[in-house]
This record gives sequence, C-alpha cells and structure tokens, in this order.
Amino acid sequence: MTSEQHWEKVAAAKRAALAEQIPTEYRVPEDKLPPESQQDVTTWPKESGWFSSKDLEITDSTASQILKRVASKEWSSEEVTRAFCERAAAAQQLTNCLSDAFFDEAIETAKSLDDHLRRTGQVVGPLHGLPISLKDNFNIKGKDSTVGFTSLVNKPAEYNSTLVDILERLGAVRYCKTNVPTAMMIAESVNNTFGRTVNPLNRKVTSGGSSGGESALIAFGGSPLGVGTDIGGSLRIPAACTGIFTLRPSFGRFTTQRCRSGLAGQEAVQSVNGPMAKTLEDITMYSKAIVDAKPWLVDPKMLPIPWRHVELKKRLKIAVLWNDGLCMPTPPVTRALTETAEKLKKAGHDIVVWDPKLHKTALEILGRMFVADGGKSVEALLAPTGEPFRPEMTQYKDAKDAGVFEMWKMHLERSELQRQYLEQWMSYDGLDAILAPTTPYASVAHGDFKYVGYTGVYNVVDYSAVSFPTNIVVDKETDKPIVDHQPQSDFCKSAHETYDHELVHGLPVSLQLIAQRLEEEKVLAMTDVVLQVINPAN
Amino acid sequence: MTSEQHWEKVAAAKRAALAEQIPTEYRVPEDKLPPESQQDVTTWPKESGWFSSKDLEITDSTASQILKRVASKEWSSEEVTRAFCERAAAAQQLTNCLSDAFFDEAIETAKSLDDHLRRTGQVVGPLHGLPISLKDNFNIKGKDSTVGFTSLVNKPAEYNSTLVDILERLGAVRYCKTNVPTAMMIAESVNNTFGRTVNPLNRKVTSGGSSGGESALIAFGGSPLGVGTDIGGSLRIPAACTGIFTLRPSFGRFTTQRCRSGLAGQEAVQSVNGPMAKTLEDITMYSKAIVDAKPWLVDPKMLPIPWRHVELKKRLKIAVLWNDGLCMPTPPVTRALTETAEKLKKAGHDIVVWDPKLHKTALEILGRMFVADGGKSVEALLAPTGEPFRPEMTQYKDAKDAGVFEMWKMHLERSELQRQYLEQWMSYDGLDAILAPTTPYASVAHGDFKYVGYTGVYNVVDYSAVSFPTNIVVDKETDKPIVDHQPQSDFCKSAHETYDHELVHGLPVSLQLIAQRLEEEKVLAMTDVVLQVINPAN
Repeated sequence: MTSEQHWEKVAAAKRAALAEQIPTEYRVPEDKLPPESQQDVTTWPKESGWFSSKDLEITDSTASQILKRVASKEWSSEEVTRAFCERAAAAQQLTNCLSDAFFDEAIETAKSLDDHLRRTGQVVGPLHGLPISLKDNFNIKGKDSTVGFTSLVNKPAEYNSTLVDILERLGAVRYCKTNVPTAMMIAESVNNTFGRTVNPLNRKVTSGGSSGGESALIAFGGSPLGVGTDIGGSLRIPAACTGIFTLRPSFGRFTTQRCRSGLAGQEAVQSVNGPMAKTLEDITMYSKAIVDAKPWLVDPKMLPIPWRHVELKKRLKIAVLWNDGLCMPTPPVTRALTETAEKLKKAGHDIVVWDPKLHKTALEILGRMFVADGGKSVEALLAPTGEPFRPEMTQYKDAKDAGVFEMWKMHLERSELQRQYLEQWMSYDGLDAILAPTTPYASVAHGDFKYVGYTGVYNVVDYSAVSFPTNIVVDKETDKPIVDHQPQSDFCKSAHETYDHELVHGLPVSLQLIAQRLEEEKVLAMTDVVLQVINPAN
Repeated sequence: MTSEQHWEKVAAAKRAALAEQIPTEYRVPEDKLPPESQQDVTTWPKESGWFSSKDLEITDSTASQILKRVASKEWSSEEVTRAFCERAAAAQQLTNCLSDAFFDEAIETAKSLDDHLRRTGQVVGPLHGLPISLKDNFNIKGKDSTVGFTSLVNKPAEYNSTLVDILERLGAVRYCKTNVPTAMMIAESVNNTFGRTVNPLNRKVTSGGSSGGESALIAFGGSPLGVGTDIGGSLRIPAACTGIFTLRPSFGRFTTQRCRSGLAGQEAVQSVNGPMAKTLEDITMYSKAIVDAKPWLVDPKMLPIPWRHVELKKRLKIAVLWNDGLCMPTPPVTRALTETAEKLKKAGHDIVVWDPKLHKTALEILGRMFVADGGKSVEALLAPTGEPFRPEMTQYKDAKDAGVFEMWKMHLERSELQRQYLEQWMSYDGLDAILAPTTPYASVAHGDFKYVGYTGVYNVVDYSAVSFPTNIVVDKETDKPIVDHQPQSDFCKSAHETYDHELVHGLPVSLQLIAQRLEEEKVLAMTDVVLQVINPAN
C-alpha cells in the first residue's frame, strides 16, 4: 500500500463532494422526497410539484422532439439544460445514478449555443443544444473517470475521449456522468466509491450494469439520451432492466478512443459504446449523427463506412432464441418472446428457431478472456488505497495470468467460434435477425443479477443488436414461477430460485433483436418493423 | 523430443518428394540449364529454346491479358495452365521457389473450366481459367502447409483456406505453392525444410521474404499472379527485391481465415494477404474480384465495404519519407525517391516532407509484439523434430513470455501510436499519400536483409500500401556507396557496409505509396498516377 489514503476515507469524501456539486436550488428537501418505502419513483416528478410544468414538458420529451424545438427557437438550449439538470439532481437523490455533475458549465455551453443560433440562424450540428449524459468512463478534461475505483478519485483526465469531442462538435451539451460498477465488470451498478444505483421503476431492483447509472437516469427522465458502453451486455442489460432502448453497435462504428477501460488494453473482445434513450427514433438519430461525423478521421480504429440506407425485405426471416440451453428465461421473458414471435408470424414474417449449439463455448471463452491477465488490471487499481475486491468480482481475484502463448491460443478458439457462428447464420438461408431475450430476467433484486449469457455471446461474435422494451410488463398472476423447474445449470437454478413475481410485477420486459456484424442500420430498421407489429396503435 | 523423425531426415525426404512431384516432361535436363555462374536467369526461358513460342507468349502475358484470351476462347485454360506449370517447374530448378506442385490436378481443373465455357458460353467468374500461385501458408485440403517447419511435413490440411475457396469459386486454377522463411518471420525466404529461394534477376541476391517464393516465381514468369501475405513487409519486400507490384491491404478486405500462421493467434498486429504481379492493372483486377466476392459473408472478420470508385484530386498532396531516421536508404533508393518526387512535382503535384518522428516507437512496439509469447509458438513447432532455431531468429529463442497483463499494456502503447500517426497525417492538411522506400535496398546478398522498418511501420498502423517498381535500376557508376557514411543505427551501418553496388547493378528499385487505412482503391488509383508520371511513354 502506498501513501494514498485509505479507500473508505476517499470514497466518503468523493460522495460528499458529489453531493456538494449539486447546486442548492436543485436539491430536493427531505420533506419533498418520496418515502423510503416508495419503490416506483418515476411517478414522483409529476406528483411532487417540485418541477414547473414547462420543466416537466421538456424532460418528458424525446431527444428528437427537443432538437426540433431548440432548432426552431421554441425552446432555448439553456432552459432545456436547466430542466434536465434539475431532474438529474432529483434522480441522483432518488436513485444514486450520478458520478459527476457540472451543471454550471453545461448552462454556459447551452447559452453559447443559443447565442450562436440567434446570431447565425444556424445550428452548430445535428445535436445542437441537446443535453447528453455520459457514462463515467468517458474522459472529460479536468474531471475524474473513476469507473468505481477509489484509487482513481481526484485523478482528473488530461484529455477528452474522442467521442466527447465529437459530441461537442455536433452541438451536444454535457452536464453529468453516470455511475457504473467497479471496472464496469458487474451486471449491476455498484462500487466502493459511489455505492449502488437503484432502479427508479422499483428501487428494490437493479437498474442493471454496467451502464446502470445511465439507465436509471434516463428511465427517471433525468436525461433525454445517454451514452453507455458494452463488453458483455453493459448497454443492453441496463436498458432491459429499465425498459429503454439501446443499440450495441459492432466495433468500428462509434469511437471508443481515449475512454477509461475497466480492463485497459484487453482486445480479445472489444468494448463498444452506444446510445440509450426512451425511443428507437432517438437511438437512430444519434447513431446517424455520430457516423455522419466520420469518426474514422480522428480514430484509426474506426471504419470508413458511411451511414447506409437500408431496404428491408417485406417478409423478414427471424430466428427465435427461445432458450440458450444454459439459463432458461424467467416466465415473463418467455411470454414476451412467445407473443412477439406470434405477432411477427401473423404479420407475415418467417419465424424459425435458432439453435444455440455454439453459445456454451462462446461464453466459456468470454469468461476466460476477461480474466486472462490474472485480474492484475483490477488488482492494480484496488491496491493503492487498499480497496478490497467486491464480492461480485471473485473471478478476478482468483485468476492467474494465462501468459501470451495461451492468450494467442484463446484468440484462435474465439476466431473459430466466430467462424462457426457465421456459418450457422448463413445456413439459415436468408436469415435477417435473431430475436432473443436480452436477459433471463425483467430485472432482479440487488445482488441477484448473475447471468449475462444472452448478451455476452453477441460481444464474442461482435454482432449489432438492439435491446427494446416489448409491450409486455410482468404480471404476477400470469407470470408465476415455474413449478418443478429443471435447471439447466447453476445460473438457471439461481435465476429461477430468485425469480420473485411479486417483486418484479409491473416491470417492463425487453428483448434483443440481433443482426449480423456491422449491420447497425439494418438492425435499427428491423426493430422498427417489430415495434410496429407489437404496437400497431403507434 | 517425441518419436517423430529427426528434422534433417524429414527435410531431405520432403525435398526429394517435391522434386518427384514435377512431371518428368517438365524437368529441364542438366545440359539445358544455365551454368551455375549465370546470375540473371530471367533471360533463360527465351534463350534456352526449352519452351515453345506459344508457351513463351502465354507466360509473358499479364493476368488481365490471359483472362481476356481465355474468356474469348482464343486460348484454353488448359494450354495456359500447362505453359505456367512448365515454366514454374523451370523456376523451381533455377530458384528453388516452390513448396508444392500439383500440376495434374491443375490441368484437370483447367479442362473442366474450358468445358464449362464451351458448354455454357459463360465464364464461371472473373478469374476464369487463370493459374494463380499461392504462398505456402494457404491451406489446401490434403496438402501440407509447413511454413518451413519440418514438424509440419506430411500433416496435410483438413480444410481449405477461405481465400482458396473463393479463388476456386471465381474460376482460378491453383497449381503450386511457394516457399517462405521459417514461420514467415524472416525477410528472406529460407528455412530448414526447403532451403533457400534465390532471386531470378540475380541468383546471388535474395528474392526477399516472407513471400519470396512468390516473387521469384512471378519474376521468372512462372506465375501470372500470386497471393502472398504481409505482417511486417512480407508482400512488399519480396515485390521490391524482384521489381514486381503488390498491394498490402488493410486488415478486413481480403480474407486470411484458415490460413497457417507463423505466430498463430497473434493479433496485436494483423497479418494480411494480397496479390503480387507484374502490372498494377493485374493487382487492381484481382483486388476488385476478391472484394466483389463479398468475403464478409464467409469470414466474420471481413468488412462489408464494397469495391469503391475513387475520384482523385487533380493535384495530389504527397509527403516524401526520405529517411526514417533509423536506416538511411542506400544510394539507388534515394535516387529513385528523388527522381520520382521531382517528376511528381513537375507534373503539378504538391510534394511535402514526412516527419518520421513516430517510426522508432512504432518499430520498437512491433518487435516486442512478435516475441510477446516468448517465442513459444515457434519453439513448439521446432521441438517435435529437434529442428534448431535458424540464426535469423535468435530473438524468438531469447524471448520470454511477457504475460497477458504486459500484453494489454503493449496494446495501449500501439493504439496510442496509431492515434498519433493518424493525428500527424491529418495535420498535413489534405494529405493523400506518403511516398517512401519499400526497403533501404534494391536487394541484398543472401543473409544481408536486416532492416524491415520502412514496411513494418505500416503494419503497425495498418495502412494500405502499394510497392511498385520505379523506372530506376541500380547503376554501379551512378549509385556508388556513400563516402564517410554516418550511420543512424546498427541497421544503418549494416545496410551501408553491405551495400555492394557491383552486386546489385542492374536490379530494379521499388518504392512504396501509402494511403490511409482501408483506402485500397485510392492507393491503387494514386499509384497509377505516379506510374504515368514516371513512365510517360506507357
């Protein structure tokens, strides 16, 4: 242990400092807060009277609606930004979703954007005046990116992440960063610095991880659009836990350059980032804006593939992944799959069954790749402040460095798996997509999120995937636990033993639509087709 | 050591078997062969009277010419294939450039293609009937891919490389595989199984490596087009040593799936493959054919980027890399650079100077990445037959496994270098290309090829690059050694101490044109502009 302070002291000071960063006028007085016993706090903004009706109108709008109104000068970016700062401050008090807040800077940025629009009549870019929240690991010059480690507290970044620069160039207003689990390697958002983020739809359950600060903030209405990251499900799991949308792009479309990584330099499976928002339209709008900004001119790992127009077949061929053979989905998820598949079939699409024969191997490889350094990357970030391994991360504590010779062999196994997965896909003559659970759960009680196999497999093969809320919500009467469940694995046993239909009653159920690698445009367009089928009223 | 045979016995048997694979009628009798003392054997096919005039006409044609004549039924694929088999057999006797020959199978393939064309009036694809030679590491079911290791002799491949399947689908005729250095990690083509390939332009000098069997074969006229690979210069160095063309594409355009690798699973710098031929037109024709075949439908690592039409600016901005600060080019190479740059300037192009400030770091990282496994991959292939490390490969013998934690750090260093290189490129406002030496040499006496820095740096950043012969050949009067040379490094000292203007007199001098990552179409189009400037008569 070095001369640095003990982790608990650092963490307490950091939490106190974060609380201080919320301007006084945005802090909700104790007596205005909902009672601890109130689980669903998403109703609170309207019920409490804390916000003006204008602020509610703004913060209940979608990103695309906001952009139009700011561009037409109906709303100023300043008033939009103030409204989201205020609502984000409340989100922080109610769900502990932030890791940083810099509202004054944001309001200054918004003012200068308003000024630019007033003077020139032009927006600076397609995201002009839109507040965008960022996951903690995006570097912003002068601000911390701790990814939950106390040793990284008060180590301000010396540069911006490349995406942060691009967002600024496109006119976005940054105003806060959001909480993550330690090293971003837990499927819930909990760490020794900031503690645990809870789900605003039900504070007894997790908002997922690792982009669970984002999902909580967005689901609460504290952000119109946020950017998270995904290496094993970290965009899709929190999106599913809170009933919002996300796109996990393949590596090469949205720049990850100069971001803080939990496992820095690990490349056997690539981390990607993507948008999280309440509508598919917003996800598509953001994705096009980022690719149109040509990230390959500033990040050598990005691909010079412009945003492409997609013509979909009238009759899509979709394979349903009912069960990956390792962890059977809980009843509401299976019901969402069944109803969605039935409606798609009725609408004339070709529904077939995906055989998960390669999933076990894929996940086994994924697990080994994460700990190939013997957990040394994590350990090196824990040691300076004497911070202990979190109980969710014992695999990092117990791991041994595999050595490069073995790592190279692992690469070969992974490449062969990727080859086989594509071969299987092509064998489904004309397959357009896989429809799958995002997770086996709607959400779970804190500490119970154990299985990331439905998302992780698509990190191994690097396919493009959207997680979207279906029109199904958990119903404790309909979605009773399976009697005499025959578990397929310990994961499966745990998922069904901890399945609490009373606890998750009323929570949204999400699914994933998966397209091939680098088919971001197509998977978004196909998700739109699915949404029209399951929500014909829209 | 296992029960396998001793390496010398295995090697001798393999060489004898290869000699037997050449049909008797193609073996040149001793008395018809040029004397040992004849260095340039490229004149022999015409002088010897060994070939018919039709065979000479065929084998002196370009790939594009052959394709037209076969498609129009002026020539049959069978007669074309027989002609190249015969000339490849002579190339093997004169330069030791092959590692496998399967002429009977090739002639059967050619016959069936002729039959198809006769019956249907259609070619099967854009490479219909064209013999294409393949570097040893391309797997062909039932045939060895030893990459020089005796332990891999008589271990026939169980599947085809994906590119082999694609070439077959496009109508190419495979007829031989070509020699490489051990593990393909030496810049000359020498190994303990097949021995050394020599340069048909001057048998005292190297044809380069690792695709030096290909370059010797093509330069001799034994192949109209071959496919080699490149991880540190292995396409460009042999192309330069023999005065032919090649494209080193960025990773993701031409599939490398299911090829034998020297360092299997090493991904920190990616091996790529590309065409080698006597004209730029052939290189472009092949590249388009491969990308048009959509390799991304069969190889998940390939990018869905179609072959793109390029509109070049009238006035190109080209930065000249005169000297990388580590190894000054020998006199003929500097002269080729000077004359080419002057002609480009005269033709109205914007010529600036490339600052090689990042090259030293790039090459230092490249060196570490190759030996990160402690040389265990190479050792594991030497051990079974007791084969010794070749003297050129002591760095693999001496290396220690770095461990995955250190490997991840190396990835970070490499990514930062890539970021800085792109940043520097963009700082040359509107830069189109870098013009650089391919190697510091025209070629060198066997054993003297020590410096791969001019090619290796572009493997680290994964840029697209063409190596092309200039209109300069070494002139012993003009290109005298530098008096009082002040070496920049040991590499530089060695390059200039071993520079033998008498030895390399008459050899062609090549340069590289380098474009950004994934700009294959652009770098080919720009090379055409350069060729028109330096060879206005063409």
